Amino acid sequence: MIDYRSDNTGRAAPQILEALIRANHYTALGYGADDWTTELQQRFSDLFETSVRVFPVATGTAANALALAALSPSWGIVYCSDVAHINTSEANASGFFSGGAKLTAVGGRHGKVNSDLLAEALAGIAPSQIHRGQPSALSLTQATDLGAVYTLDEIQTIAEAAKRRGLRLHMDGARFANAVARLGCAPADATWRSGIDIMSFGATKNGGALCDAIVVFSPHLADGLAVQLRRAGQVWSKMRFASAQLLAYVENDLWLDMARASNAVAARIAAALHDIPAARLLAPVEANEIFLELPQVAMDALEADGFQFYRRSRTLARFVCRFDTSAAEADALITALRRRLDTSPAPQAVG
Amino acid sequence: MIDYRSDNTGRAAPQILEALIRANHYTALGYGADDWTTELQQRFSDLFETSVRVFPVATGTAANALALAALSPSWGIVYCSDVAHINTSEANASGFFSGGAKLTAVGGRHGKVNSDLLAEALAGIAPSQIHRGQPSALSLTQATDLGAVYTLDEIQTIAEAAKRRGLRLHMDGARFANAVARLGCAPADATWRSGIDIMSFGATKNGGALCDAIVVFSPHLADGLAVQLRRAGQVWSKMRFASAQLLAYVENDLWLDMARASNAVAARIAAALHDIPAARLLAPVEANEIFLELPQVAMDALEADGFQFYRRSRTLARFVCRFDTSAAEADALITALRRRLDTSPAPQAVG
Amino acid sequence: MIDYRSDNTGRAAPQILEALIRANHYTALGYGADDWTTELQQRFSDLFETSVRVFPVATGTAANALALAALSPSWGIVYCSDVAHINTSEANASGFFSGGAKLTAVGGRHGKVNSDLLAEALAGIAPSQIHRGQPSALSLTQATDLGAVYTLDEIQTIAEAAKRRGLRLHMDGARFANAVARLGCAPADATWRSGIDIMSFGATKNGGALCDAIVVFSPHLADGLAVQLRRAGQVWSKMRFASAQLLAYVENDLWLDMARASNAVAARIAAALHDIPAARLLAPVEANEIFLELPQVAMDALEADGFQFYRRSRTLARFVCRFDTSAAEADALITALRRRLDTSPAPQAVG
Amino acid sequence: MIDYRSDNTGRAAPQILEALIRANHYTALGYGADDWTTELQQRFSDLFETSVRVFPVATGTAANALALAALSPSWGIVYCSDVAHINTSEANASGFFSGGAKLTAVGGRHGKVNSDLLAEALAGIAPSQIHRGQPSALSLTQATDLGAVYTLDEIQTIAEAAKRRGLRLHMDGARFANAVARLGCAPADATWRSGIDIMSFGATKNGGALCDAIVVFSPHLADGLAVQLRRAGQVWSKMRFASAQLLAYVENDLWLDMARASNAVAARIAAALHDIPAARLLAPVEANEIFLELPQVAMDALEADGFQFYRRSRTLARFVCRFDTSAAEADALITALRRRLDTSPAPQAVG
Repeated sequence: MIDYRSDNTGRAAPQILEALIRANHYTALGYGADDWTTELQQRFSDLFETSVRVFPVATGTAANALALAALSPSWGIVYCSDVAHINTSEANASGFFSGGAKLTAVGGRHGKVNSDLLAEALAGIAPSQIHRGQPSALSLTQATDLGAVYTLDEIQTIAEAAKRRGLRLHMDGARFANAVARLGCAPADATWRSGIDIMSFGATKNGGALCDAIVVFSPHLADGLAVQLRRAGQVWSKMRFASAQLLAYVENDLWLDMARASNAVAARIAAALHDIPAARLLAPVEANEIFLELPQVAMDALEADGFQFYRRSRTLARFVCRFDTSAAEADALITALRRRLDTSPAPQAVG
Repeated sequence: MIDYRSDNTGRAAPQILEALIRANHYTALGYGADDWTTELQQRFSDLFETSVRVFPVATGTAANALALAALSPSWGIVYCSDVAHINTSEANASGFFSGGAKLTAVGGRHGKVNSDLLAEALAGIAPSQIHRGQPSALSLTQATDLGAVYTLDEIQTIAEAAKRRGLRLHMDGARFANAVARLGCAPADATWRSGIDIMSFGATKNGGALCDAIVVFSPHLADGLAVQLRRAGQVWSKMRFASAQLLAYVENDLWLDMARASNAVAARIAAALHDIPAARLLAPVEANEIFLELPQVAMDALEADGFQFYRRSRTLARFVCRFDTSAAEADALITALRRRLDTSPAPQAVG
Repeated sequence: MIDYRSDNTGRAAPQILEALIRANHYTALGYGADDWTTELQQRFSDLFETSVRVFPVATGTAANALALAALSPSWGIVYCSDVAHINTSEANASGFFSGGAKLTAVGGRHGKVNSDLLAEALAGIAPSQIHRGQPSALSLTQATDLGAVYTLDEIQTIAEAAKRRGLRLHMDGARFANAVARLGCAPADATWRSGIDIMSFGATKNGGALCDAIVVFSPHLADGLAVQLRRAGQVWSKMRFASAQLLAYVENDLWLDMARASNAVAARIAAALHDIPAARLLAPVEANEIFLELPQVAMDALEADGFQFYRRSRTLARFVCRFDTSAAEADALITALRRRLDTSPAPQAVG
Repeated sequence: MIDYRSDNTGRAAPQILEALIRANHYTALGYGADDWTTELQQRFSDLFETSVRVFPVATGTAANALALAALSPSWGIVYCSDVAHINTSEANASGFFSGGAKLTAVGGRHGKVNSDLLAEALAGIAPSQIHRGQPSALSLTQATDLGAVYTLDEIQTIAEAAKRRGLRLHMDGARFANAVARLGCAPADATWRSGIDIMSFGATKNGGALCDAIVVFSPHLADGLAVQLRRAGQVWSKMRFASAQLLAYVENDLWLDMARASNAVAARIAAALHDIPAARLLAPVEANEIFLELPQVAMDALEADGFQFYRRSRTLARFVCRFDTSAAEADALITALRRRLDTSPAPQAVG
C-alpha cells in the first residue's frame, strides 16, 4: 500500500521525538514557566524578525478556533473560504470558542478568498446594522485547502480590503511551511508584514507530532489569549515537552526542509500529469496536495493497485504528499495514473 | 535544590517517551482511527473490568471541563469541594465548556465533599425552582486537593446522596493512580462500581508527558463527547502518539508503580513528622502531597536550605513528591524540617 | 405615505393593550406563578388539542434561538432554509444560545426546505463523523420568509425525512397565524400532528405588542427550557402582563381574524398582479407578504408616489400587509403598480 | 391578605400602561428606529446630565447579564456581594452571556461590597496569573439586596479600588429609584460621576410593567452591546411599546415619586420597630425592603393574620413595600408585629 491519504497519517520527524527525550531531565516549572518555552519565544521572534508571542497548542483546530476567538467578539462575522478547514472540518470550533461568532464563506478560486468578493460582502453590511452580526475577522488558509498558495501580493490586497473595514486577520497556517517553501520568502513577509495579526503555525501535518502553535503578531491580543488558552485546556503543565517539539521543528530549517520535500514530490507528480490529458487538476499544485478529477473507475483501479487516497466526491480524488513520501512512491503513482487513465473513459466535467 | 513544588515539574517516565519512538513507524489514520487508539479502548476496558470509552486529551483541565460539560446542561449546578482544582485553578474552564454551568462549593474536610452538606445543599433547591439553575453533577477529586483519599465507602455514600437527586458523577482523577495505590482496590471499585459516570484519568502528574484521558463509564455520554472533543481542539490528528503514551503508562502496572513510589516518599516524610510537634499537617498524607502548617521563618529557612515548595498561604506550605523523588531527598527534607522547626517559634493555629 | 415596510411597523390590536389595563389590579406572584400564566397553559392546550407548555418571551428571536437551543446540543447542526430569518436576520442568536450549534442552509423553493435536499445533506454526514458536528434539528418557517405556506403534506414529508435521522423539529411560526388562516386547518395539524416538537408562536407581526411565545409539544423539553429562559432574561417578573397579551391574542379567534385580514389584502394585491405582465412574483402569495421583482425605476416611482416598502435587492421589492392594512391602501398600491409598470421598461430577469 | 412578598407582585403605574395606548397609532419603524426610542435617548441623557445610550430590555436579569458581558471577557472575574441578585437568583445568567465569566463574592455588610476586602481579593491575583481568570468587573447593587443604600462616598471609594486594577463598574439598579430617592442626589452623582460605566436601570420593581433598561455611560461599550442585545433576543421589533413605558416612567419624576412612596412606607414600619425590642433588623431600612429576624412562631402568626411575605430562612423574614402599599397597610403590619412579638418568645441570635 502507498499512502496518499493525508499528511496527518505520517510519521513525526525523528528529530522532534528525540527532542522530547533530551528535554526529559531535571525538573522544570509548569505551564510554560520553563526554559524551553522561554527559548521558544526568542526563537520564533528571530524567525519572524519581530517580537512575537508563541503559544503551543495541541491541535490545529485549537490554534484556529482560539486565534479567531481572540479576534472576534461573540457577535462577530468571520469570513473565510467556503472550503476552509475551519468551515468544513472543525465541527464549528470557532463558533464555539468565540461564543457564537458566525463563519461566513466568501467565494474565490482554488480555496482562496477573493478580495473583490470580500469587499462586496463587507459593503452589504452597514456598521449600524444589528441583525446579522458585525464583520470582525478574516481567516486566510495558507497553503489553501485545495493545495494552492496565496502570493504575497494576494495576501496584501485582501488584507487591505479587510483592514479598510476594521477586520483583523488570521492565517490558518496548517501548511504554512509548504507555503513559505513555495514562495521562498521570509516568514515575516507572508504574515505580519502583509497584515496578519495572528496565525496558526502548523507543525503536525509537516512532520510534527503532538503540537502546533499560535503565533501572535499584534501584542495586545496575547495576554487575554494566555488566560483563554489556560481555560481551554490547552496549556500543558509539562509544557517543556511541547515547546521542545516546536524548537526542534524549526531548528536548522527542519520545517522548511520537510516542506520542500513534500512540495517537491507533489510537484513531480503534477508535472507528470501535464501529458495525461484525462487527468484534470482542480487547482494548481503549489504545495503538497493534489486534487485530481478522476472517473470513479479510475479511482477504483488505483485503489486496487494499492494506492490510498481520499475521495472528496464521486469524481474528485485528493493525494497528499508527506515529508517522507519518496520519489519512488511518486513515480509509482504516476505510472498507475498513466495506465489507468489511458484505459478509463474521459472524466465528466465537474461543476 | 530539591524540588517539592509540584508533580508537574517532573520528568516523564522514560517508558512513555520511548513508546512515542516505537509508534513512529509507517502511516496510520488520523483522529483516533489508528491501531494504538483501538488497543487503548481494549486495554482500559480490561483495566476497569467493563467496556469503557477512553479519549486522550491534552490536559487535566480539558479532561475535567469536557467531562463536566458532558454531565451538565448549560444551566446546571456542578457541586465540588471548595478547594477542588476545577474551582480554584482552571480559570472556570468547566463554566466555559458547559456554556455557563455554575460551580458551587460544598464543605467538607481534607478536600472532600461532605455527603450531609451535599444533601443539605440539594434540599435547598426545589426541582421547580428556576432562579439558581438546577443541580446536575457532582465532581469528586481523588486523591483530594489536600492530599487525602476518599475511601470506597465515602464515595458510595456521597454517590448515593447525589444519585437520589439525579446528579451524575465525575471523578477528577488527576492523582487517581495515587488513590488506587493507597486504597489497594480495583480501579473499577473506586469508579463505576461506586457510581462514577465519567472520569478524568490523570497521567501527567504521575510520570506522564503530554496527555491525560477521559474515561466514560456511562455509554450514552460517549458519542456526543466525541464530537465535543473534536470541536474543543482535543482530538490530535496524529492520535497514535497520545494513545501510545497512555498504553505505556498502564503497561505492566507502570502507573501504579510510579504512584506507589511517590506515595511512599510522602508517607516517609509524614511519618517523620509525628515526632516534630511544631509540624502540623492540614490533612492526612494519603497520597503524594503534604500540606504543612509552618511559620514563615521556617519556610524562609527551608528555602535557604535549597528546598523548593509552594506557599499556599503565609502559614501553609505544600510539598509534592514525584515518582522519582528519592528517599535521600525525603530524608534531606526531614532533617531540615527537624532542624528548622526545633529553632522556630511554634506555628500559630490556622482557622 | 402608505406603509408596506413590515408587519412589525404596525399597531398592536387594541384588545391586546386593553388586556394589560385589565390585568393591572391586585397583586400577583412573579415569574409566571400568576393566574394569567396558569390560564395561558390551559388556553393554549385547548387551542392545540393536547397538553402543551407555553412560555411567553419578549421577541421572536428569543423564541427561535431558545427553542433551537433546547433541540440541539452545542455541537449540533441545525438545518433551515437559506432565507430563514434565523439564518439571515437574528445575528446568529441560535448559534449563541446553543453554545455553538451551526446553522446549515438547505435548498428549496419559495423559502421552503426541500425534503430531498435535506435527505441528501443528512446522507452526507455519517453518524460516526466528528469533524462537522452532528445533525440535530430542523427549523421550518411557516409561513416562509418569502411569503409561501407549507402544506400539511409538505410538513409531514420533510418531518419524516428529518425524524429518520433522529432530528427534532422546530417551527418558526412568526407568521403562524397567517399560515393557519391560509391552510384552514387545526393548529394541531400544522404542528405536533405533523411532527413538530417545539414552536415559536408569533404574535408581534400579527397585531401583538411586546411578546411572542414558545410552545412545547414534546414534554421532556419543557423543564430544562424553563431554567434556560430564566437565565436568558426572558422570564418577566410581572409575567401577568405578558400572559394577558397572549390570552387576548387568541381570545375569540382574534389572532386568526387579524391574519385573515392581512392575508386577504395581500391576496387582493396579488390577484391584481395577474394582468400586469411586468410584475413578476418571486413566490406565490399565500400569506401577507408579496415579493415582487421590479425594475429600479419602478421602485423609485412607487416611493415617489408615497409607498414605503423594503428593497431586498436592486430588483426585488417586498410589500407586507398588516392586519389593519385597508382595502383602499391595497387598491392604491395596485393602481400605482399598474401605472408605473406600464410606463416602466420590462424588468430584467433575476438569477 | 396584605401582600409584602415582593415589589414584583405589584401593579404597574397606570401612567405606564396608558402610554402604551397612546403609542398605538400609525406605523413606526422596528427595532428601535422609532420616535419614542429616539426621544428616550435624549430624555435619559437629560436625566443623567451626559450623553448616554439607553437600551430597553425585557428584564432586570437581561440588563444585568448583558451589561456584565459587555464589561468582562469570557475569562474574566466579576466581583459582587455574596447576596447580590446576580449571584443568588439569576441562574448564572452573567456566566452564560459572558461566555463563562465567573462571579466571585466579596464580603461586606448589609449587602454591600467592602472596598478593603475587594482590594485584598484583587491583590491575591497577579496580572500574569492564568489559572483563575483575570479580574474584569465589579457589580454594585443599589439599593442592596438587603435594603441598604450605598452612600456616594462608599461608591467612590470602592470604585477607586476597582479602577486601580482596571476593573470596570456595573451598577445593578433594580431599585435605583429607591436609592436616588433616599440619597436625594442627582442620578449622575450616583452613577457615572462616581465611576459607574454601565447600569441596569430598573423599572419593573418600582411600578414598571414589561421592561427595564441598560444605560451606557462609557460610549465605547454601546455599539457592540447593540448587536449583542439583538442576538440575545432583547430588541423588540415594536420597540416603541417598550420605550414608551420608560418615557412615562421618568416623566414628571413619576419614578422618584413612586420610590419615595415605597421608601416612606418602609421607613414608617422601620421606625415603629424601634420600640419593639424583639424585632431585630438585619440591615438598616434605607429603601423599600425590611429584613427582619423573627422567630418562626411569629412568622406563622403573621401569616395567620393575613400578611404575605417571604421567609428567607427559618428566622429571617423579608417585607417589601410597593409604590402603592398604603400607610394603612403599614400600620396593620406594625400592629400585628407588636402584638405577635410581645407574646412570642424572644428570637434566637442569628449567626
